[in-house]
Amino acid sequence: MKESYILNFKSITMWQEEDNKLKRTFKFKDFKEAFGFMSSVALAAEKMDHHPDWSNAYNTVKIELTTHDEGKVTQKDHDLANEIDRLAGE
Amino acid sequence: MKESYILNFKSITMWQEEDNKLKRTFKFKDFKEAFGFMSSVALAAEKMDHHPDWSNAYNTVKIELTTHDEGKVTQKDHDLANEIDRLAGE
Amino acid sequence: MKESYILNFKSITMWQEEDNKLKRTFKFKDFKEAFGFMSSVALAAEKMDHHPDWSNAYNTVKIELTTHDEGKVTQKDHDLANEIDRLAGE
Amino acid sequence: MKESYILNFKSITMWQEEDNKLKRTFKFKDFKEAFGFMSSVALAAEKMDHHPDWSNAYNTVKIELTTHDEGKVTQKDHDLANEIDRLAGE
Repeated sequence: MKESYILNFKSITMWQEEDNKLKRTFKFKDFKEAFGFMSSVALAAEKMDHHPDWSNAYNTVKIELTTHDEGKVTQKDHDLANEIDRLAGE
Repeated sequence: MKESYILNFKSITMWQEEDNKLKRTFKFKDFKEAFGFMSSVALAAEKMDHHPDWSNAYNTVKIELTTHDEGKVTQKDHDLANEIDRLAGE
Repeated sequence: MKESYILNFKSITMWQEEDNKLKRTFKFKDFKEAFGFMSSVALAAEKMDHHPDWSNAYNTVKIELTTHDEGKVTQKDHDLANEIDRLAGE
Repeated sequence: MKESYILNFKSITMWQEEDNKLKRTFKFKDFKEAFGFMSSVALAAEKMDHHPDWSNAYNTVKIELTTHDEGKVTQKDHDLANEIDRLAGE
């Protein structure tokens, strides 16, 4: 039990690079907090002109970052990931 | 060609019921319009206490509606779908 | 009556320059539409790094644009005003 | 100096009842954080069907709450104020 909890926790709290994408899942207390976070991320993305592929279900936000033109993860993705972490309150 | 165009058009403009979910994809001019739409849908969902499973990539918003407690599409999903259509300007 | 309606209509539908600010008031059907509009305007503002002074009460959004550094209306304000009009569906 | 700092601090951190309104000003690091907060507050307001009179300029959000039907502050305003504080991370 404890182990799966730890694995779960990892999947929630760290960016993973997989299939040429940076992926991370965020969980919030409720939809209000999740969508408020999405709004601030949307502003960061529009300002950088670099947009996430992302999904939401209630309090969960899954984000995938890649540089579509290059078919891989680039510095742009790491920059946006850092800003996303800041906006998540880390 | 023409046929696939028509099918494509349908998948963008009409709700489809599949796998016990109502599904529809919306395309907008840009990210600003897409996310503005998502914000108004988020408000409708929170008010109805019935939230979509949805994803976004730049100007595209894919929405799936289902009533998780019942494992099928219910009136709640149709009501939210109607409100989403209204907010999309239809 | 008719005259005040016309004046009212003007104040809602056209930008006015006053006190070195561009001002316009938008009315929507409800709060959901008003705040969806605000979200798309927020994205436009963040991208241009030029932010409005604005207020909201239910379905009404009042926007004032000025270039604080110069203490007057500049091209930046007109550019943002044009984008705001587009996002309002004009 | 110190005194004005303290007064300032109060006006930022506590709700004040004045003119039959509950008023509070929030300051954030930047526009992205301010508007993310506004989005989560918008969801809370729509859910409670009780909407704020509020304004934003860059990183500052001023909120006024009153129950328009009764012309005074009621329990609805205190409930929304509490939820707003929670969404501000307090």
